[in-house]
Amino acid sequence: MVTTIGIVGLGLMGGSLARRALETGIDVIAWNHDDSPYRAARDAGITCTNSVRELALARPQLVVLCNALHAMPEVLRALAPVLDRGATTLTDIGSVKAVVRRQVHEAGLADCYVGAHPMAGNEHSGFTASDPRLYDDALWAVTVDGSTTYRRFLDVAQFITRQLGDRLIVLDDIAHDRAAATISHMPHVVSTAMINLLCAQDNRNIAAALAAGSWRDMTRVALTDPARTRAMIEEDRENVEVLLRDMAARLEDVADALHVADERRVAAFFTQGDPFRAYVRASPPRGSSRAAVDTVDAVGGAQPTMHRLTLNTQPSAHTQPSAHMQPSLNTEASAQVPSWQTQLATSAERGEQIIRFLDDRTVEVLTRAVREPA
Amino acid sequence: MVTTIGIVGLGLMGGSLARRALETGIDVIAWNHDDSPYRAARDAGITCTNSVRELALARPQLVVLCNALHAMPEVLRALAPVLDRGATTLTDIGSVKAVVRRQVHEAGLADCYVGAHPMAGNEHSGFTASDPRLYDDALWAVTVDGSTTYRRFLDVAQFITRQLGDRLIVLDDIAHDRAAATISHMPHVVSTAMINLLCAQDNRNIAAALAAGSWRDMTRVALTDPARTRAMIEEDRENVEVLLRDMAARLEDVADALHVADERRVAAFFTQGDPFRAYVRASPPRGSSRAAVDTVDAVGGAQPTMHRLTLNTQPSAHTQPSAHMQPSLNTEASAQVPSWQTQLATSAERGEQIIRFLDDRTVEVLTRAVREPA
Repeated sequence: MVTTIGIVGLGLMGGSLARRALETGIDVIAWNHDDSPYRAARDAGITCTNSVRELALARPQLVVLCNALHAMPEVLRALAPVLDRGATTLTDIGSVKAVVRRQVHEAGLADCYVGAHPMAGNEHSGFTASDPRLYDDALWAVTVDGSTTYRRFLDVAQFITRQLGDRLIVLDDIAHDRAAATISHMPHVVSTAMINLLCAQDNRNIAAALAAGSWRDMTRVALTDPARTRAMIEEDRENVEVLLRDMAARLEDVADALHVADERRVAAFFTQGDPFRAYVRASPPRGSSRAAVDTVDAVGGAQPTMHRLTLNTQPSAHTQPSAHMQPSLNTEASAQVPSWQTQLATSAERGEQIIRFLDDRTVEVLTRAVREPA
Repeated sequence: MVTTIGIVGLGLMGGSLARRALETGIDVIAWNHDDSPYRAARDAGITCTNSVRELALARPQLVVLCNALHAMPEVLRALAPVLDRGATTLTDIGSVKAVVRRQVHEAGLADCYVGAHPMAGNEHSGFTASDPRLYDDALWAVTVDGSTTYRRFLDVAQFITRQLGDRLIVLDDIAHDRAAATISHMPHVVSTAMINLLCAQDNRNIAAALAAGSWRDMTRVALTDPARTRAMIEEDRENVEVLLRDMAARLEDVADALHVADERRVAAFFTQGDPFRAYVRASPPRGSSRAAVDTVDAVGGAQPTMHRLTLNTQPSAHTQPSAHMQPSLNTEASAQVPSWQTQLATSAERGEQIIRFLDDRTVEVLTRAVREPA
């Protein structure tokens, strides 16, 4: 169990995590690039340091990088000479994972690193907006590669499940960044394109006046700091590009079908997403407690939706990867028994989420899957 | 002032309007295509009829068609032989206006018709979900053509402003349907394309697991009855087609800029919508009262944001249009002084909303404009 945590960056996400950790009895030591949040942070019970170095020297069991993505190389350079890798496991909560792992490798900190990305947040920013409830019932993506040791994974995973009471899935960086592009990065561009389109129209005032619920929902993310959104998109540009072209083709396709009044094709368009509609209907209401999640699944139907996975925690053959090679989790030709990384990555692909550890190598998972389209 | 209103269709919108009217002391007589909501409606104080004919024969000052769009021709055919045009003004709340006016013309009811579309609603449906608060602070689009008499307009507009306490803008059908396509119909297609894209991916379970706020907001409208959405899009297919191609081009453009890592072009994309961001920042918070709206504007800045318009209520030269001709409100070559229709349509283009009538031909308007993009 983590008893002391180091938080780098006391913005909305880092500040909320710090306050959540405090609530669960963990000591929190934190550094921020400026000391503007320190007074409020100290009032909340957080120990604030003058440097990243000072934070590292306190030897917290876990250091969580909650700083802006652009500051990552600098923070890692400051940590590298002083971080006690025996005592401390390093993680981060960045919204893109491949680039962070590369920077961690470059700083020579790969051996104590596990990536993480909590699915939490809101449109506000800064420590003043922080809220320990922000992490309630959050799902975390935990990113590993073939060289990640099980002990490091366990440090992060048990902090998430036991101490925060959250859920997690395990992915490689590529799968994470591709999925994040689908559900966040690409949608941010689409939302932004919508407000651009409105502004470009002669009838912009009429359109803005008529805008109601659907427009408000679909453009909310375009209203948040466009510079931050742009940085996020540029970090994941290859995935975003592919998805934008995919979306453009889908919209052109509907336009073509409307042009020729092909009702059959229009109708088909409106049913393609039925598997996702069914997935949402089967999900527990937002903000429901863990108990409610369990109950929904208990009454969910004939198929068992909770089961156990026993993990193969033997180190794999790939324990010394080169700094820039990220062995895919799914192509371990040499292994007879899949590694824990592969077991958990395929579990995530099946729609399973880790709810809790029953012992150090047995996890309980909940299944919440989108059926294959017809 | 309206003392008796007839409501055709007791779904979410019609039911909510009926209950709102009752609250303000108006007698409500209603018909629904089946009598399933009648028990609850009668308990609420609504007089329910066995036929559209019976409703018309009660001679309410206002009949509001709140039925489904596909039922419009049948309802109009039932009304035509019995509606007392001297006693009753006819309006509707359909989300597309050109097609409804055409159907009204075909039924021979154009002389007593004014179109309307309240910007209100939620994801629920049916009388059981109805709520008089649904119309709180709503903006209504009121649609007229060159043949609409000022008296008919006044019947609808004063009901909206004086009796419901809502705001309105005046448009022709073409301007309405184009703007509605921008802020509602096209976004519904975009949202649907996003869930289709997710379902088509191999990593659909991972993407669905990671989905958080931005995805939830942007796909909410894709989850509501896709058949209803499809009907709405098909009724406005020409405008939607143009906008979908516009959106597709914008997305391809960003994809191209990301492909060549053209940071300048990506940056420009993220600032194009700044006029809309400024517009939202200057708007009163959602759900704020009329008093709050007035206050925000009173403190809004140097420019006066409330002013008066005196309307030219003389009938224009075009009082006998043919059934299928809709004279544009902005091209009255013969008129020396713009007609009230033209005055109000250009007022809407400037971002003005009618707050109240000061007398029968003077309106007070509030300006809420999106500045022209740089």
